[in-house]
Amino acid sequence: MQRILNNDTPKHIGKKVRVCGWVNSLRHHGGIVFLDLRDRSGILQMVCQPILAKGIGKEYALEVEGEVKKRPTKMVNPELETGEVELQAEKVKILAKAEVLPFDLKDLKLSLPRLLDYRPLTFRNKKIQAIFKIQEEVISSFRRVMKNLDFTEFQSPNIVPAVAEGGAEIFHIDYYDYDAYLAQSPQLYKQIILGAFERVFTVTHVYRAEPSITTRHLSEYTSLDTEMAFIDSWQDLLDVCEILIKKIFSDVQQNCQKELALFKAGVPDLKIKIPRLKMREAQQIIFERTGRDNRKEPDLEPEDEKEICEFAKKKYNSEFIFITHYPTKKRPFYTFADPKDPEYTLSFDLLYKGLEIVTGGQRINDYEMLVKNIKKWGNEVKDFAFYLQAFKYGLPPEGGFALGAERIVKQLLGLANVREATPFPRDTERIDQRLSLLQKRKKPRRRASSLRGRPKK
Amino acid sequence: MQRILNNDTPKHIGKKVRVCGWVNSLRHHGGIVFLDLRDRSGILQMVCQPILAKGIGKEYALEVEGEVKKRPTKMVNPELETGEVELQAEKVKILAKAEVLPFDLKDLKLSLPRLLDYRPLTFRNKKIQAIFKIQEEVISSFRRVMKNLDFTEFQSPNIVPAVAEGGAEIFHIDYYDYDAYLAQSPQLYKQIILGAFERVFTVTHVYRAEPSITTRHLSEYTSLDTEMAFIDSWQDLLDVCEILIKKIFSDVQQNCQKELALFKAGVPDLKIKIPRLKMREAQQIIFERTGRDNRKEPDLEPEDEKEICEFAKKKYNSEFIFITHYPTKKRPFYTFADPKDPEYTLSFDLLYKGLEIVTGGQRINDYEMLVKNIKKWGNEVKDFAFYLQAFKYGLPPEGGFALGAERIVKQLLGLANVREATPFPRDTERIDQRLSLLQKRKKPRRRASSLRGRPKK
Repeated sequence: MQRILNNDTPKHIGKKVRVCGWVNSLRHHGGIVFLDLRDRSGILQMVCQPILAKGIGKEYALEVEGEVKKRPTKMVNPELETGEVELQAEKVKILAKAEVLPFDLKDLKLSLPRLLDYRPLTFRNKKIQAIFKIQEEVISSFRRVMKNLDFTEFQSPNIVPAVAEGGAEIFHIDYYDYDAYLAQSPQLYKQIILGAFERVFTVTHVYRAEPSITTRHLSEYTSLDTEMAFIDSWQDLLDVCEILIKKIFSDVQQNCQKELALFKAGVPDLKIKIPRLKMREAQQIIFERTGRDNRKEPDLEPEDEKEICEFAKKKYNSEFIFITHYPTKKRPFYTFADPKDPEYTLSFDLLYKGLEIVTGGQRINDYEMLVKNIKKWGNEVKDFAFYLQAFKYGLPPEGGFALGAERIVKQLLGLANVREATPFPRDTERIDQRLSLLQKRKKPRRRASSLRGRPKK
Repeated sequence: MQRILNNDTPKHIGKKVRVCGWVNSLRHHGGIVFLDLRDRSGILQMVCQPILAKGIGKEYALEVEGEVKKRPTKMVNPELETGEVELQAEKVKILAKAEVLPFDLKDLKLSLPRLLDYRPLTFRNKKIQAIFKIQEEVISSFRRVMKNLDFTEFQSPNIVPAVAEGGAEIFHIDYYDYDAYLAQSPQLYKQIILGAFERVFTVTHVYRAEPSITTRHLSEYTSLDTEMAFIDSWQDLLDVCEILIKKIFSDVQQNCQKELALFKAGVPDLKIKIPRLKMREAQQIIFERTGRDNRKEPDLEPEDEKEICEFAKKKYNSEFIFITHYPTKKRPFYTFADPKDPEYTLSFDLLYKGLEIVTGGQRINDYEMLVKNIKKWGNEVKDFAFYLQAFKYGLPPEGGFALGAERIVKQLLGLANVREATPFPRDTERIDQRLSLLQKRKKPRRRASSLRGRPKK
C-alpha cells in the first residue's frame, strides 16, 4: 500500500491507508491510546489498542496502517488540518526507536547554548522548523526576483588566494603546499564574471573569523550576493535593492503564513518608500535625538543603527532605512568614492529594525584607479592580477550588494540571536559541539599579515 | 533615455534608442565603420561615422544612442536575432577602455592552462558563456524538481569538525585555536536535518584535496545533494534519481537550445528506462567484452566505467547506467550493507557517457549499528556525538544521493576536462592564478591523521 501524508487523510475517510511519521505525543485514556503522529505535512491523531502501542515512546518513527474515520463533531480539533478525522490503527510497525527525551520537545524552554547542543533533536520542534522554512523562502525568493530581473546565477568559489574585504578577520587553509583562505565575500568573482553576463548573483557561504561573540555575527553565513553592470547611477542599486527586499518580504508573507503566525510576526508595510539618509545626516539626527555625539565616528555603532531605525519608524512609518555615503577609509579598496566629496563613498547599508541586513555600493570600474587603490590600501598589485584582467579589458560602471540571509530571518521573526536563524552555527565557541570539548591546536593561528583591508595611513 | 537591450531593437524600427554593451568586432568599410555591440541579450550591428568610432577598439564598453533602421533585404543577417536591423549611431560614449586583446576572443584556440589564466577575459566568449548558462539551468532544474517532490532546501555548513567520507583527502583550516576541515560532503548534515523535514536537499560546495590531476576531479566542486526518509526500499532512491536526472536533461533541452547548439550537443533519449547492474555483474561483462579481469577489484576504474557505458549504449541504447552494490569496505561508515550479502552495500552510482555523475545509497539509520560502524571504521564515537543524536531519538529508514554539477555539464557538452565546466577551478596547480607564482608554505601540510575514512583491517 502506498504511503500517504497525514494531511491527505481527510480525503480518505472510510478507507484503509498507510502513514509514516514520528510520535509527537501519546496518552493513555480509558483503555485506548491516543497517539499523535507527525510527518512533514502535519499531525494526525491515531487511536490504538494498548497492545499495538506497547513499548512505543515519543519520537519513535512508525509506519501505521488503519482506517481513516470521521471524528464526532464535538471531538473535531480546529487547530489541526486533520482535525476532522482520526486513524483507527490496525497495524503498527516500529521503524526506529528513540531514547527518552531530555526535555519537552513541543514546548522548548532552553538556553541558546543548550538549544544548539541539542540541535539535531530541537530541529523537530515546530517553531524551529518554521525558522528554516522561512529562510528557505527568503533565499528562493531572492533567486526568483534576480532571475526575473535577468540576472545570471553563478557558483562563486570559497577557497581564495587573498583577502578582498577589509575589517573582518580571515580563516587560513592549508592548501596543498600553499596558503589559501576562506572567502570573506564573493565580491571579486562577481565583478570578474560581470564581464560575461552583465547581471549576476550567487547564493554562497562567506567566512569571518570574528573574534568576539555578538548576537549578529557568525563565522560562516549565507550571503545573497548580486552585481550589475551598465548602471546609470549608483542610485540604480538602491532601486533594485528596494524592489528585491520588498518582493522577498511579500513572498514570505504569502508563502509562510503558518510559520509567521507561530512567531506572531508580520512583514513591514511594503507600500512605504524606503527613506535614504547620508551617514553624516543620520549621525546629526542621532545627536539631536539623544545627545550622543558620534558625528565624527567613521561608522554607525549598533546603538546608532537602532536609534536611526526608530527615527525612520516614527518619521516615515518605515521599518527600513537606507544609510548612504560611508567614509572612504572605512570601505574596501574597490568602493567608488563620491566625485563630489571623495572622503565619502557611493555606498549604502539597508537597516531593518535596527540591524544592517544589506550592504552595497558602486565599485571602481576604471583599471588605473583600481590599481592605484590596491596600492593605497597597502596590497600588492600582483596578488590581484587575475581580478584586474576583468578591468584591463573594459568593464563599464557597475555596483552591487549583498543580503545576509540569517539576519533577515532573525529580524523578521524577532529572534534574539542570529544563531537561532542558522541550522548549524559556527563561532568562536562551537562547530556543532562546543569547541571546549576538543583539544586546542598547539600552534597559534596564523594571520594573513601580508594582506591588508584598510588604506595605509 | 532608458537603455534597451540589443535584442529588443527590432521592436523600435524608426525610433531613437539607447543601447549599451561591449565592442565584439569592428571593421572599416568605405568611409563608415561597422561595429558589433554585444550585450547580455545578443549582438547588434551599428553603423558609425569614423569620427564617432575614433580610438575605439575591441571590448571597449560603450553607450550608444541612435536610430534603429531596417536593413535592406539582401543585408539581413539570419544568424543574429537583430539581423533585420542596424543602429545608425549618433552619439557614442566610451564607458570603459580596453587594452589590445592577447588573442582572438571570438574564436578561442587556447590550451586549457592558458584558457584559465585568462578566465576573466575568456568568459566573454559565447561558447564559454553557454557552458555556465547550462550549468545554471542544471542547478535550477535540480532545485525545482526537488521542491516539486516536497523536499526542503537547507544551508549545509562548509566548516566541519571531522571527516565524513572516506578516501578523498581533506583540507585543514586554522579555526581560531582549534582544528577544523573543509566539508567533503554535506552527508552528516543532510541526515541530521532529515529528522525535521523528511526530505531535504542542498546545493553546496564540497572540497577534496585530490593530490593528482585528472580530467574529472576538482578541489572545490558543486554538489547537488539530497536525502529522503521513510523509504520502503533503497530502490526508491534510484527511482527518484532517475526522475530527477531525466527532468534536468529535459529542462536543459527545453531552456538551453541555443547553448546546446553551439556545442552540437544533444540530450540523451529520456524515454529509455535506465538499466541497473550490480558492480560484480558489470565486472563480469567487462571481462567478457575485453578480457580485462577486474572481477576482484573493489571498484570500477575509469576505463571500466567507459566500457560498461558502451555496453549499456549498445545493449539498451542508454547513455546512462546504474551500477549498484559496491563493496562495504570501499564505502563510508554510514552506508547500509545488503542484509542478504553484507560484503556489499545498498549503494549506487549513476554513470553517464563513461563517467560517474551521481553517487548514493541507503544509510544506516539504526543508532546501535551506526555506533558499531564508527568504531569499526577506526573513528572515535565522541567525534560523532552531535550527528548520533539524530539517530538516538529515532530516524526511520533513509537514503540519498549527490550529483556533481560540473561533471553533468562536462559530459553533456563533451568537454575534455571538468575544469572547463567550472568558472573558477581550484586544483593542485591553480587558485585563479597558477600556484607556482606564489611562495610555498614553510610547513608541510597537516593531515587529518586521527580521522579515518576506511574500516580498520
